[in-house]
Parts: sequence; structure tokens; C-alpha cells
Amino acid sequence: MKIYNYAAGPAKLPDQVISQIQEELPSVQGSGMSILEISHRSALFENILADAQQDLRDLMKIPDNYHILFFQGGGTGQFAAAPLNLATNHRKIALLDSGHWAVRAGDEATRLGFDMDTLASTKNIQYQSLPHLPENQNLDQYDYLHLTMNNTIEGTAYHQPVRPINTELVADMSSNFLAETYNVTDFGLIFAGAQKNLGPAGVTVVIVRDDLVHKVENVPSILDYDLFVKKNSLYNTPPVFPIYTAGLVLKWLKEIGGIDEMQKINEQKSQMLYDFLDQSKLFTNHITPSDRSLTNIPFTTGDEQLDNQVINAATEHGLMSLKGHRSVGGLRASLYNAMPIEGAQVLVDFLEDFEKHYQGGH
Amino acid sequence: MKIYNYAAGPAKLPDQVISQIQEELPSVQGSGMSILEISHRSALFENILADAQQDLRDLMKIPDNYHILFFQGGGTGQFAAAPLNLATNHRKIALLDSGHWAVRAGDEATRLGFDMDTLASTKNIQYQSLPHLPENQNLDQYDYLHLTMNNTIEGTAYHQPVRPINTELVADMSSNFLAETYNVTDFGLIFAGAQKNLGPAGVTVVIVRDDLVHKVENVPSILDYDLFVKKNSLYNTPPVFPIYTAGLVLKWLKEIGGIDEMQKINEQKSQMLYDFLDQSKLFTNHITPSDRSLTNIPFTTGDEQLDNQVINAATEHGLMSLKGHRSVGGLRASLYNAMPIEGAQVLVDFLEDFEKHYQGGH
Repeated sequence: MKIYNYAAGPAKLPDQVISQIQEELPSVQGSGMSILEISHRSALFENILADAQQDLRDLMKIPDNYHILFFQGGGTGQFAAAPLNLATNHRKIALLDSGHWAVRAGDEATRLGFDMDTLASTKNIQYQSLPHLPENQNLDQYDYLHLTMNNTIEGTAYHQPVRPINTELVADMSSNFLAETYNVTDFGLIFAGAQKNLGPAGVTVVIVRDDLVHKVENVPSILDYDLFVKKNSLYNTPPVFPIYTAGLVLKWLKEIGGIDEMQKINEQKSQMLYDFLDQSKLFTNHITPSDRSLTNIPFTTGDEQLDNQVINAATEHGLMSLKGHRSVGGLRASLYNAMPIEGAQVLVDFLEDFEKHYQGGH
Repeated sequence: MKIYNYAAGPAKLPDQVISQIQEELPSVQGSGMSILEISHRSALFENILADAQQDLRDLMKIPDNYHILFFQGGGTGQFAAAPLNLATNHRKIALLDSGHWAVRAGDEATRLGFDMDTLASTKNIQYQSLPHLPENQNLDQYDYLHLTMNNTIEGTAYHQPVRPINTELVADMSSNFLAETYNVTDFGLIFAGAQKNLGPAGVTVVIVRDDLVHKVENVPSILDYDLFVKKNSLYNTPPVFPIYTAGLVLKWLKEIGGIDEMQKINEQKSQMLYDFLDQSKLFTNHITPSDRSLTNIPFTTGDEQLDNQVINAATEHGLMSLKGHRSVGGLRASLYNAMPIEGAQVLVDFLEDFEKHYQGGH
């Protein structure tokens, strides 16, 4: 039975990348050593790191005045690092509350002693649309505005960034990084955990504009942008294998034709599922169409028991990890870059079939 | 040509573990999904995590009142986490300066606003012996004493822990973790980056006594012991693959017979090299014999150019990464758990041969 993995992250990687890792696991680039064993100070790894940085720069058209850094600690680490490194002037951050991960980012900043103002929220409508800034709102009292570009749990995405006035934009791009095209220069800082579209869990990409990086006090070294810029992400031992794997995924994405091409494929995949859901009499996606995510699609029958029945039947058919996040319930299909179009088709076919039999049975 | 990798870390892993990873990379435990793709909330990963914890508990005889946690960020992360979590009473830490990594630990605590007193140092003798506490020194003004159990760069190790009076002992065991037997109850906190004896870079083990863990303020969540205890290391997405690999290494170590057995093998390997160095007329190890490390053995001809000649000739023979740390120079052989006895023999044979030809040429 072929397995399809719709997990929200860690998530599916390209088959081609898994094969390549498997093939060269005992001896990376003919070195006689495994990628799991080589020194991070070796020329071999330095080249792997430089290649990953350059490929990412090419793919996202990242200008020279932005640094590309690799950290450990995931998005949660960056919820701390962003204020510690960037909110040093006003110690005050603005937030649009678009869901669970926006709240978590705000909580971490608050925990570390920063002021956090939630300027808009769609919590009262269960996050079924995205919050936006009041028009022309001046934000000059804030060090930055924090935005969760894609809300993994709620299934929404800012396909265009909110444009704050008089402050910087900080984007948590964890779950649609490399899945749709953004203009890097709209942001002061972009970060993303790898484990959705870039690689395995254990590495976090930070893209930060040079003029925002400065010496900071009282910040743990492993979260210090300035140190990581100066040491080119080699201040301490980096997560070698996750960076290597991310490098292979970036090369795979280049072969596909880059982010614009990937976005078209992602639109095609997600549209197949949204089209099905919108005509279905059994399943519903509740998100305002213009705010719908390309990568994370929650849906429900509206009946918890029936939802669980669908999930169990899907699992028996090899369609894995379709359970929605516990805070939302229902089902969720994550259709990240590595999910082939076939994976969206198989899911729609299964749901269609389930609906047919379900209604036949009533 | 067979390659032998003497890197100080990331370092050699057991061949058997590399083979197993390779074999099950496309489908871990018959799941049809790669370990690189599975959710950290899956039963599959929860079992992998529980197994790794239990195997480590068995191997090190860790009592129930100690927690086993997995962090990201390496030893450098723990240089921050240890004071942030444990030095909350006096905000004052005692240090024995046994070399580079002890100093780095002290610098990180200082950077974060803690007082750090260096109670003894062997810097003036190039760290060729270990510093010890003045006898019966009362440390009740300190939250803990920080000890680097094995000095990766200088080649020394505390084979018995220093026993401070009236304070806790915090041990950085990064480079001899699982390589020799210690009594866990001698320590309040043990931490170790995986990339020497446990697994690939990207995961850090923390073993901490329960009564030392408490709610802390103003600490980034990814360094918060209390949170990680409450969430069993799953507060955020953990480094799934490094934990999985560490789990395989732990099972391999159990098969070998545990840490006591491993220590005997490590003693045998290191003794072969020390015996050679001590009788050699060309190469010297400068460390006081009783303080010598089992895992990291620096040596030199005393002539930088000649040292480089040896390193180059070794590389040509497939003996890799023998260059000493830049702060010490010379050569260094790391003989971690995964290095077979054969690897020590091959190195001794090579050095013997080099010496013979070198002296023949003069």
C-alpha cells in the first residue's frame, strides 16, 4: 500500500531527496565518511553550507544586504530571538492575532519582558479570516510588527504581506516558506523552521536585513544574530545533517523551476481540495476564500465522531496524519511542496468516495 | 582506501548504526514514511523517544529522581541554560578553569549577568594538568560548581568528579559522555552535546535532578528545564532525526555490554596510543598521565611544519581530521566510542612508520 503523509510538520520530503540521502549516507561526496560524522569545520561541510545559502539566495532573490543564518531551536527559538535582537529600542512589539502561533510568539516576547500590543484579532470569528491593520496606522512606537504569514493550524495565509507604516515587518514563514513567492525586501526579518517545506526538524532559517543586526546584551549566544552573522552560522556546532538535507531540498526546488513554479503546483493541489470541499455536502472548509492557505487545509463534517470515522478510514487506506490540531479539531491536510499532485488527487478521490458511501448509507 | 575519521566532533558513528539508518531511511519501522518525515506527535516517535530515555537510564543507572531531557543548541546552549535555570538563588557560579570550554562556559554565564568565580586554573601550565579545588573549600555562596569533565581540546579528563562542599556539581560531559563510567548521583546536572559519543550534531542531552528544576522567569522557552520536564522534551518540535539516531547508538552500546565494557575498550585504545607516544622520540603528549583523556589525545613533534607534514601524510593514507585545535596546534586523535580498536592500531602503525622513515632520512 502506498503511503501518503499529510502531516503538518515534520512533514513529507521529496522522494528524490530521501533517495539521495540514502545512497550517499555511508560516504558523502565520495569522502568515505557519512554526513553524520564529518566535522563542521571541514571544507566539505563549508561547501555544503555555502551552497545552501547561495541556492536559497537565488530561489528567494535575497538581496546582498540580507544575511542567511541557520539556527537551532525552531520557530519557538525565534519567538525569543526576534525580540531579543530587534526590539532593543522601544522594547515594544505590535502583533496581528491570526491564530495559535501568533499568540505563542506574543506570549514568548511577553515572557521575556517585552511589551506586546495586539492591534487586531480575528479570534472572535475563530480565525476564519485574517486580521488587518487599521488603515494608515502609525507604528513608530514599536520596534516591529510580528506577522504569522501562514497559520498552520487555522489554515489561513497572508498572500501579500501587511505593510506597516514606520516600523519593520517580522514574518514567521515557517509553514509556507518556499511554497509561495514573497518579496524579501518587504521584510526586516523572515524566519522559518525547516520541518515543513525545507528539510527535517532541527534547523531554522533566519533571513535578516543587515542594518537590523547589532551587538546585544544579555542574549544567549545561540540566539544572537550578531554572533551568527560574524561566524557565518558556525559560532557553535551547527545541525550538520538538517542543513545538508535542506541543501538537497533547495537543489530539488531549483530543478522544479523555483518558487514561482512551485507556487503554481501548490495552487493546483490546494484548488483541487478546496473545489471538492466547496461543492461537498458532507465536508466544509470554513475559511474566507481569499485568506485560504495553500499549504494547510482544515475541514470538517461538523460532527466529531464522523470526523474520526473519516480519519480512521483514511488511515486504513494509507492516507496518514489527517487529524486536525486539537485546538481546532476536524481534519487537516497539509499539502507542502514535497506532496505531489497525485497526493491531492488521491485525497479528493478518497473523500469523494467516503461521501458517496456515507450518503448512500443514509 | 579505508577511511579512519579522528575528528573531535561531529565524529565517527558506529558502522552498524549508519547501516541501519540507511536501510530504514525510506520507511522507519515499516511505516512507509521516513524518520525525516514523521510527526513528533506520532506514536512512532513517542516510542522512539521513550526507548532512548529508558536505554540511557539503564546504561548510566540514572535514578528516577533525575529527568532525561533533549534540547537543541549544543553545549553552548547549555552554557546559558545551566545558569538561567540553576543559578537563581545566589546568581553566582564557581568554575575550575581546565581549558577552552570551561572558559567558554564561564564567559556565557558572565554575558548573561551571572557572577563567575574561577577558583583554580591550570592555564599557566598550558592546561597540562587539571585544576582542583583547595581542600575543604566551602562553596555555599555559589549556586553550583561548573566542571568540564573531559577537555576536548587540551586532552584531559576528571575520571573522578571533584566533590564540592555545600553546592551542586554541574558537569559538561560533552566529549566523554558514555565513554567512561560516572556515578550520576554525584551531579546535580549533566549535559552533553550528542556529536561525540551519542549521535549526530543537533541534539543535546540534559540529565537534571528533579529538586533543582523550578519555574524560572525571563528564560527563553527553548532553554527552560521546567517547561521541558512538563512537556517531556516536546514543548516544541524536537530534532527528531538526531534523537532517533542517538536511540540507535544507545542500543548499540547496550549490545556491546554497556559503559563499563566500553570504558575498557576505550582504555585499551587510548593506552595503545599513549604507550606509543611515551616511547616515541619524535612525538610527545604533554599531559600529566593521571589526567589524560580517554577520548581526545593531543600530541606534537614540537615543530609546526613537521606536524603539518604528518597531518598531510596521514590524510593521504586515509587517516582524517588529525589536525589539533587551532588554540593548541599539533595533532589530535579523538578515539570516541565508535572508533574501533583497529582505528587506534592503524594510527599507531602509521605514526611508527612515519617516525622510522623520518629518522632514517636524517
